[in-house]
Amino acid sequence: MTTLDPDRLLPADPGTRAVARELYAAVAEAPILSPHGHVPAGLLLEDRPFGDPAELFITRDHYVTRLLHAHGVGLPALGVGSGADPREVWRIFAEHADSFAGTASAYWIRDELATVFGIEETVDAASADRIHDEIAARLAEPAFRPRALFDRFRIEVLATTDDPLDDLAAHAALRADPAFRGRVLPTFRPDRYLDPDAIGFPDAVDRLLGETGERERFDGYLRALQQRREHFLAHGAVSLDIGVAEPWTLDLDSAEASALFDRVRAGDAGPADRRAFRGHMLLQMARMSVEDGLVMTLHAGVLRNHSSATLAAYGPDTGHDIPVATEYTRGLRPLLERYGLEPGFHLVLFAVDETVYSRELAPLAGFYPSVFIGAPWWFLDAPDAIQRWRSAITETAGFFRTSGFIDDTRAFLSIPARHDAARRADSGFLARSVREGRIDLPTAERIARALVDDVPRRTFKLGGPR
Amino acid sequence: MTTLDPDRLLPADPGTRAVARELYAAVAEAPILSPHGHVPAGLLLEDRPFGDPAELFITRDHYVTRLLHAHGVGLPALGVGSGADPREVWRIFAEHADSFAGTASAYWIRDELATVFGIEETVDAASADRIHDEIAARLAEPAFRPRALFDRFRIEVLATTDDPLDDLAAHAALRADPAFRGRVLPTFRPDRYLDPDAIGFPDAVDRLLGETGERERFDGYLRALQQRREHFLAHGAVSLDIGVAEPWTLDLDSAEASALFDRVRAGDAGPADRRAFRGHMLLQMARMSVEDGLVMTLHAGVLRNHSSATLAAYGPDTGHDIPVATEYTRGLRPLLERYGLEPGFHLVLFAVDETVYSRELAPLAGFYPSVFIGAPWWFLDAPDAIQRWRSAITETAGFFRTSGFIDDTRAFLSIPARHDAARRADSGFLARSVREGRIDLPTAERIARALVDDVPRRTFKLGGPR
Amino acid sequence: MTTLDPDRLLPADPGTRAVARELYAAVAEAPILSPHGHVPAGLLLEDRPFGDPAELFITRDHYVTRLLHAHGVGLPALGVGSGADPREVWRIFAEHADSFAGTASAYWIRDELATVFGIEETVDAASADRIHDEIAARLAEPAFRPRALFDRFRIEVLATTDDPLDDLAAHAALRADPAFRGRVLPTFRPDRYLDPDAIGFPDAVDRLLGETGERERFDGYLRALQQRREHFLAHGAVSLDIGVAEPWTLDLDSAEASALFDRVRAGDAGPADRRAFRGHMLLQMARMSVEDGLVMTLHAGVLRNHSSATLAAYGPDTGHDIPVATEYTRGLRPLLERYGLEPGFHLVLFAVDETVYSRELAPLAGFYPSVFIGAPWWFLDAPDAIQRWRSAITETAGFFRTSGFIDDTRAFLSIPARHDAARRADSGFLARSVREGRIDLPTAERIARALVDDVPRRTFKLGGPR
Repeated sequence: MTTLDPDRLLPADPGTRAVARELYAAVAEAPILSPHGHVPAGLLLEDRPFGDPAELFITRDHYVTRLLHAHGVGLPALGVGSGADPREVWRIFAEHADSFAGTASAYWIRDELATVFGIEETVDAASADRIHDEIAARLAEPAFRPRALFDRFRIEVLATTDDPLDDLAAHAALRADPAFRGRVLPTFRPDRYLDPDAIGFPDAVDRLLGETGERERFDGYLRALQQRREHFLAHGAVSLDIGVAEPWTLDLDSAEASALFDRVRAGDAGPADRRAFRGHMLLQMARMSVEDGLVMTLHAGVLRNHSSATLAAYGPDTGHDIPVATEYTRGLRPLLERYGLEPGFHLVLFAVDETVYSRELAPLAGFYPSVFIGAPWWFLDAPDAIQRWRSAITETAGFFRTSGFIDDTRAFLSIPARHDAARRADSGFLARSVREGRIDLPTAERIARALVDDVPRRTFKLGGPR
Repeated sequence: MTTLDPDRLLPADPGTRAVARELYAAVAEAPILSPHGHVPAGLLLEDRPFGDPAELFITRDHYVTRLLHAHGVGLPALGVGSGADPREVWRIFAEHADSFAGTASAYWIRDELATVFGIEETVDAASADRIHDEIAARLAEPAFRPRALFDRFRIEVLATTDDPLDDLAAHAALRADPAFRGRVLPTFRPDRYLDPDAIGFPDAVDRLLGETGERERFDGYLRALQQRREHFLAHGAVSLDIGVAEPWTLDLDSAEASALFDRVRAGDAGPADRRAFRGHMLLQMARMSVEDGLVMTLHAGVLRNHSSATLAAYGPDTGHDIPVATEYTRGLRPLLERYGLEPGFHLVLFAVDETVYSRELAPLAGFYPSVFIGAPWWFLDAPDAIQRWRSAITETAGFFRTSGFIDDTRAFLSIPARHDAARRADSGFLARSVREGRIDLPTAERIARALVDDVPRRTFKLGGPR
Repeated sequence: MTTLDPDRLLPADPGTRAVARELYAAVAEAPILSPHGHVPAGLLLEDRPFGDPAELFITRDHYVTRLLHAHGVGLPALGVGSGADPREVWRIFAEHADSFAGTASAYWIRDELATVFGIEETVDAASADRIHDEIAARLAEPAFRPRALFDRFRIEVLATTDDPLDDLAAHAALRADPAFRGRVLPTFRPDRYLDPDAIGFPDAVDRLLGETGERERFDGYLRALQQRREHFLAHGAVSLDIGVAEPWTLDLDSAEASALFDRVRAGDAGPADRRAFRGHMLLQMARMSVEDGLVMTLHAGVLRNHSSATLAAYGPDTGHDIPVATEYTRGLRPLLERYGLEPGFHLVLFAVDETVYSRELAPLAGFYPSVFIGAPWWFLDAPDAIQRWRSAITETAGFFRTSGFIDDTRAFLSIPARHDAARRADSGFLARSVREGRIDLPTAERIARALVDDVPRRTFKLGGPR
């Protein structure tokens, strides 16, 4: 492949492609709204040059390390939990180019190399060193520092993901910095405070109660969480995000909930109690969102750290989080019975189980004003998967009950490639609708524009463009 | 969009479209067989002019009110449970045109406006009042009364859905009316007599036993149901229809079943007993079908009335029935072990959980002569969903183990648009098969014709054309 | 249909079809590697002429008899469990030609008739007798004996499926026969020795212990299995295959496992114990594979013999095995926690539940070096289903974590048609990737070649070409 195909991801049928090209042109250069992701605020505050190409593209990207691991490469050889030679790491990746063909990662990386670095050459064993050095040379240039790229990428909003006890000093400093005009928002991520089975749960609750000065009782604990949400709101947060294995909620009266909290704190809670606590805390988070307006996003259905040996040796986020079947209709009912009709409440549901798209998510979001269908997530954030998602939900819920694309990435450099891929995929889907006489072209163009602008703005309460 | 695309829903690829156009032409004008739906017989008996456009297209169509509700419009503002100004209701709908883009409802309504009313203009805020008045003017004309439209729509058979204790007087009067030559069939719908958790179950059983003069015992209760089925058969019924959350069946000997009935009637039945009763009654309905020949259709997998507050305020069928995962292989086994091989027994399975298409429905219908795969239902009765369904089932079960299209609609005016959409979708699927060298053109045309004629006639025992 | 379309199964879009044609041309004539199937070794050892066309294409193919049965034809009329007139059986099939249109079976049979027998004429009631006789005449020719076809089909490797106590004499004789140069491998299939609910389990264990001379204890039983695996390895086996309803595993210490074995053998094991035993035996099979290198393939998610009456009358494999929902992420975790990272261990997962493709199989195979995604199986081994499978897995796991195509067939004559269909389907999928700018043409061609060569060789440890 010598040059990046300008029509990439657009449908092959020439008539459909012509329409898709037109729709894509209308959104290709639109600013990026990234209301959910994992880039730290410090990256932009410090604005240091990025590290070497291997670290940037491989070592820290568990989408990439996982597939190399599957092909028999040990994680230490990729620099995970070790100090591998970056040039060697890059070579390993280059030698496995065919193993990545067809994957989302391969698509993004090729796009990044071409559009961010101007490198069109195919990465393979022969070109590995040359490309490595070319990237490295660029990374040393001022134009490749985080802030410069932030501007070049036309990022209007970038949300980070933060611990509730984070002081958000980096966010405050960034906002106070007259030299940086981007909008970087914190996101409240309370998983380890809500789930008794989370690593570090007892300590997290201790610290939360300690730092907020609240009493060791359920009402105090709730106030402590509320305090921290207010801290986030004061720093510009628009949403909180929760990751759960199952989207299951439970309504309890305050006496039951208090007693349950006490059992959980005393270590007397069995699996059913711990599940009940998790389920009730989701409901409490929804209640607080009704009160304080934070958009609640739920990422459900991933069993984290499937390989205990890998977790022990290399820590979490090392490529072995595996989805499970999920159920929303009954599981979210207690929460929706209570808060589903509350004006202003936003609950965005992200799934890695495709079966729920047409069966549960579109019907729920097609009735409850509070429910939004999250964009395809994680393993499903890829061109074909996006087509399947649109096909599964649109006939029931249309385009305007969706979240807008989120990149959910730790890889700052992949942000434009990911958003661009989503724009292309959506243009293709809309073009097919036009060619099949289902949507007229002006409407399709309005929708294409809305999907990268009004839709995420409204779902995430981002406000209008500045 | 100025005019309705004559090639709408046909595949974009020109070569495939040409074949699809040819196949569609062969069935476009075929009479409509509608063996399952919710239009009441009284509509045709009384033959009164339809109400205003808002009531017709919006207020009474929970596909439409649900999505407006999701966009923050309260149900009373749409005339649900209130007397909203119809012109205002229509305006609200028109203002939300983009929210419906891409949905099945938007497709049907546009088709209806164009083909039934001759209105090609786009419905939006600017045109709302004008279009409202145009529709209203037409509805006042004799040519837009139910019987005139019945003829114009070329409806050969229309099945209604009726309570087992309905006297079917409207059906009798309609058959006796020399001025009406259409075939309108009642359908036996015993849900509330089979499910102890259904609203009104105890009263329904009381009334059934009272009106049939049967004793308060299980054998009397079964005879009472049988009596009513005979009443339906005498009025032309060909099928009974049952809606269940789970397609789960249970075989019990008569002593067990009698004791269970007594516990249920006494109010002593816990959840397991109530489930057992439901499951056993499905088996009893199958037994009676083996005996009396009524086709048994099962619509499974919807949790009704998800929002209790909405149910309390506005009643059922207000847009918050949400599907759940379903299981047929094990759940229907007791029923199929007993009756699955019985000659003449027809069991048609409708699903809203797409996962069962290739995994369970096609394999079951590909072996049991009694099992038919129901057409895509409810949220899945839409162009893309129909393609997914055909793709999922055909390679295992072919085209002739399916039910034929059913519109399942309360919206009389949408019947031709829905059948037409299904014919277009099937033409597209068949055209692809032709272009991929899998089916030859004459066979494809035979199949296209059969899908709107022989297939529903055989599945629903409708008999040949008059 | 007068002639077989040379472009059959390739995408309809002309630009994509042109690329697909090129890719297909690169693999159309490649030798067949068939590492999993059900053709017996004796067929090639004895090399007798095949029986009549009816037996060959209908009576012994439960894909075909099942759909005829669904259309009301009794199994005895098809020669199943009876001595039906072959010519009459063939006529019944011919009369149901439209019922098979669009199915995988129809596709394969048409391909076989054309490419193996040179018969392009459409099979229908009019041509039935003529075609029957033409096939029968060919089958009597030496060129249509098994060995001649084996060569003509370019089969390089053919694996059989065998009982652990099989002496493999046919395999030994075939290897010793200088007149036969093909590679025919046994496959160890221990289902009835691992599952207390399998038909014949107690006797099977008795015989296994008896023939290996091991003691009636769990350690002896494990050694007995190991002995038989060694026997298979000595006869060229590369894999063992296990069919289970659920892919569920359980780790037990040896004392627990021994006690469980004793309870199972004493007939004291309830359903939970029997499940535990099955789950633990999967783990033991994996342990042995880590030790002896046999590739472990798992075919999960089929409930066998759904119709007890049919089983009683006609035996197993008569068309009523029905899939069920399956769960791998949690179910295989105990096995993968123990052996998932072991070098050289290969576990190939075949599924009939499409929901697990993107949700579980691709993520698992995208991390564990031991896990491979099995090609679409059974009901899903068909052109559209293959496209769905590739679409669901490739964006996460690429092309090289898959098994390569397996035909899994009892029908020797269908082997080339099945492999050819898979090659066409993969060429189409790759061509779309090329046209969408996702994979460049040289890479796509390398992948196409690998999918029929390196990929199955590596997954099944077949070694390089001779």
